Amino acid sequence: MACFITFEGVEGSGKTTQIGMAADHLRQCGLPCLVTEEPGGTPLGRRIRDILLNRHSFAITALSELLLFQASRCQHVETVIRPALESGSIVLCDRFTDATLAYQGFGRGISMERIHRLNEIATASLKPDKTFLFDVPVELGLSRASHRMDMQRDLPREDRFEKEALAFHQQVREGYLFLAEKEPDRFIVLDGTREIGDLQQEIRHRLNSWIGG
Amino acid sequence: MACFITFEGVEGSGKTTQIGMAADHLRQCGLPCLVTEEPGGTPLGRRIRDILLNRHSFAITALSELLLFQASRCQHVETVIRPALESGSIVLCDRFTDATLAYQGFGRGISMERIHRLNEIATASLKPDKTFLFDVPVELGLSRASHRMDMQRDLPREDRFEKEALAFHQQVREGYLFLAEKEPDRFIVLDGTREIGDLQQEIRHRLNSWIGG
Repeated sequence: MACFITFEGVEGSGKTTQIGMAADHLRQCGLPCLVTEEPGGTPLGRRIRDILLNRHSFAITALSELLLFQASRCQHVETVIRPALESGSIVLCDRFTDATLAYQGFGRGISMERIHRLNEIATASLKPDKTFLFDVPVELGLSRASHRMDMQRDLPREDRFEKEALAFHQQVREGYLFLAEKEPDRFIVLDGTREIGDLQQEIRHRLNSWIGG
Repeated sequence: MACFITFEGVEGSGKTTQIGMAADHLRQCGLPCLVTEEPGGTPLGRRIRDILLNRHSFAITALSELLLFQASRCQHVETVIRPALESGSIVLCDRFTDATLAYQGFGRGISMERIHRLNEIATASLKPDKTFLFDVPVELGLSRASHRMDMQRDLPREDRFEKEALAFHQQVREGYLFLAEKEPDRFIVLDGTREIGDLQQEIRHRLNSWIGG
């Protein structure tokens, strides 16, 4: 019954709301369920997330950022995700390896092969069984997420930078869609502009069919 | 004239004292010289070092630890070491890639091939031109370093753990000697039990011959 399901999407795509509702559903069905997130998910991961979110005080190179994400992921897989799966839990994870491919690969331009290799090392080859991708236009996602990002991302205010941020997130969105196209059996692409309850209904339907509930 | 020289050895081997004296010598010769260290050496590196040194509050898996060291190294190479070398400086670095092979590979048992691959990624293939290895018996090194380690390493007091710590550092020492044997042109193995001034004289002699001072 153990099943590893990831929720992916750009900022403000609605995945975090949906993951909580999906967990409620599984628990109501009496199924053991763990909700977790990246980066974060472990005490070490939260320390690493603090570093990444407070980067306005010092620069972090793209490759160092990638290695920090992988250190967090490695701890997360070894100490949280794998033990939960082994105990028969359904694990719902807010972002995982695909986020690294989309953000660090398509967004920041690090070679995909290098990211694949590091994902492989950090996860000891653990792959999600299924992945929900919440697809929304970047402008909508960023405007939904703007209140959360102010303090966190050193988000620039000037026009030039705003355009750069849009272009970056556009590449991330396209990267996600490319990944989904390559693995249609694993990915479920959902239109994140749909109404919340409507989206959740589709997610529950999918979960029921996979888990046989 | 740019030259990248690393100083390696187990805890309490005396390398940090010697690196400072070596830098004084180079500066007295009018040579531009940068002294730096791992982990640390950058603001990001110091944050990562804080995490590693405060690990008694939460566990860190061996592989996550390795990835944290590599994130720190990557930032260090890109933003400090390479720019200094490109500006013609002599860079003296307290621990580098060999420390990871010795501690995480020989000490913690992570595969050497995996560490080599990560070293390669994090350094973008930068290798030290020369490496001083300070070799001391583990018991002597640990007793020299004990006053520094109390707060830092959550070092256990009980006999059983002390024996484990000794065995671990013994493997690290042997690992270092193995690495030195494999690359005799790069490594200079120094007997760290020798008198400080005497050791420094040999180091200065070597530096002068490499740098042609």
